Amino acid sequence: MKLLLSDLAARDHGEAIAALSRRHGKPLELLTQSTCEQSPALAEGIDIGWYSRDIFMGGEPGRMSVATRQFFQHFDQARQPRWLQVMSAGTDMPLYQPSIKRGVMLTTASGVAAQPIAHTVIAALMGLSRGFPAWIDAQSRNEWRRTPDEQAPRDLPGQHAVIVGLGPIGLEVARLLRALGLRLTGIRRKAQDCPAVDLTLPYEAIDQVLSDCDWLILCCPLSGQTRGLISAQRLGRLPAHAHLLNVGRGPLLDEPALIAALQDRRLAGAYLDVFAREPLEGDSALWQLPNVWLSPHNSAASTGNRARDAGMFLDNLDRFLAGTALRNMAL
Amino acid sequence: MKLLLSDLAARDHGEAIAALSRRHGKPLELLTQSTCEQSPALAEGIDIGWYSRDIFMGGEPGRMSVATRQFFQHFDQARQPRWLQVMSAGTDMPLYQPSIKRGVMLTTASGVAAQPIAHTVIAALMGLSRGFPAWIDAQSRNEWRRTPDEQAPRDLPGQHAVIVGLGPIGLEVARLLRALGLRLTGIRRKAQDCPAVDLTLPYEAIDQVLSDCDWLILCCPLSGQTRGLISAQRLGRLPAHAHLLNVGRGPLLDEPALIAALQDRRLAGAYLDVFAREPLEGDSALWQLPNVWLSPHNSAASTGNRARDAGMFLDNLDRFLAGTALRNMAL
Repeated sequence: MKLLLSDLAARDHGEAIAALSRRHGKPLELLTQSTCEQSPALAEGIDIGWYSRDIFMGGEPGRMSVATRQFFQHFDQARQPRWLQVMSAGTDMPLYQPSIKRGVMLTTASGVAAQPIAHTVIAALMGLSRGFPAWIDAQSRNEWRRTPDEQAPRDLPGQHAVIVGLGPIGLEVARLLRALGLRLTGIRRKAQDCPAVDLTLPYEAIDQVLSDCDWLILCCPLSGQTRGLISAQRLGRLPAHAHLLNVGRGPLLDEPALIAALQDRRLAGAYLDVFAREPLEGDSALWQLPNVWLSPHNSAASTGNRARDAGMFLDNLDRFLAGTALRNMAL
Repeated sequence: MKLLLSDLAARDHGEAIAALSRRHGKPLELLTQSTCEQSPALAEGIDIGWYSRDIFMGGEPGRMSVATRQFFQHFDQARQPRWLQVMSAGTDMPLYQPSIKRGVMLTTASGVAAQPIAHTVIAALMGLSRGFPAWIDAQSRNEWRRTPDEQAPRDLPGQHAVIVGLGPIGLEVARLLRALGLRLTGIRRKAQDCPAVDLTLPYEAIDQVLSDCDWLILCCPLSGQTRGLISAQRLGRLPAHAHLLNVGRGPLLDEPALIAALQDRRLAGAYLDVFAREPLEGDSALWQLPNVWLSPHNSAASTGNRARDAGMFLDNLDRFLAGTALRNMAL
């Protein structure tokens, strides 16, 4: 069997892969990207592809890295590819689609970056909640400006967060917000109760809780059911003191309607890591809105992700070689 | 018995005070600040003073509010003052000193604002940890700039926080950092183990943990023992990736040495709410240092503080009228 992987992954994890291969008595040949570049015909024999984090990095959402393009050129040459392990939590990347159409088994890295993403959400929520945007703004002008008592932020305990998506990110967000004393509603496909939140509702029932929501947190996948979930009408149901946070995908919400609501102060603020178009256009009004923090689809940034990504692949390789069910099967 | 209090406190809590007075069968006369202004001689009969939060607000550290000056002018006229309840956690305010010298029983509001202050600390720690200063900087220029992989922040779990001061603020900081998976060392007067942290050390042993510290968090009172605790030498023991957070008092640390360490990148960043001189001078180098967030002695700002401050006074008044020990006795 032949495994396509990056040169870096072969260097860092070649030994661990060889050990698994020996243990299961199944010979496994490593085809690095540079080997495939030199001898493109080898790609035809690929059985397994590991699209690891280092191949992705250097690219940007909407701007594919050279290594990424190369990886999928090779993988798509395979005559009988059996399994593709990817570094993302979602399956919406265009370069995955040929493999999906061919029926290759696709496993994601869902959960690998959940903790740093959840920590970014909590950092933004607490920063916005405690008034850091105004302090940072005053600081930029060397200005000592205390928050007037009548503009003091509300205590976090007792506030109501609506978490859309109870995957690994949503569950970690819920755990930390519960430690901070917030009331929690979770929104997901099935209304089945989730003990991490106080109330679980299905997507279609979200309107029930919007008018009483302090923090609307989007951390669900983009799907037919969630595209456009946060419409102009639903944004209009949020109270003026509410904040919106999005680390899911840009098309979950109506971005022009969000901008209008923030400009008209019908919403108190936002933290956005994802956008309708990425990179976000340089002339978007979002950049300069008060009480809005943006990050460039970067909320996962953390040194620990590479090791967790490799751990996920090696665990799945172990299962693959043993012939048992893989984790994070997408299809 | 006569109680000096603000007009606002008399309006909002007069009924609750009257109810306690009736319950204990001890008549209590309310002297509001405006009554005392009109008839200054009444101040001589004051038994109890409640220096509530609303009297303090409007002033600034280093800039006393008019109402504050007025309150202590009256209270210092009292011939036999017995008890002074103040709105601060510390007892270092100059206007408290005449009462302290006269032996008036002083009770503080320690703990009243601990939760919002701790939340501000966690907000700053997480914001600095996840890379928000660089994102906010890029945002100010409408610039989409992802954190390069080699500059990605380290995962928070497993990092080591040294919390100086295990009062109500330090304990809440510890509780939340433990939920985030950090290792915790607590520093306080007595080395007696505190279950909220993994290791407890007395002030004089702080050098043992500085070289292994990721987050040095100062939330202790200013005292003879803590003034200058974080000297230039001790700052020099911190690793270059460490951050310093101070919500205690400015003189806990050597501010010029901190500025030099940040300028020379011998420290990764800081969050400071308190300063050697307040308001912080407009030409201080601190304002414009990268990875440094400042707030204007304002970390406690929260709508819940007034109610908690009143709750503390009313509880102590209940105890005072019952003749039992008060909470937060400072002397």
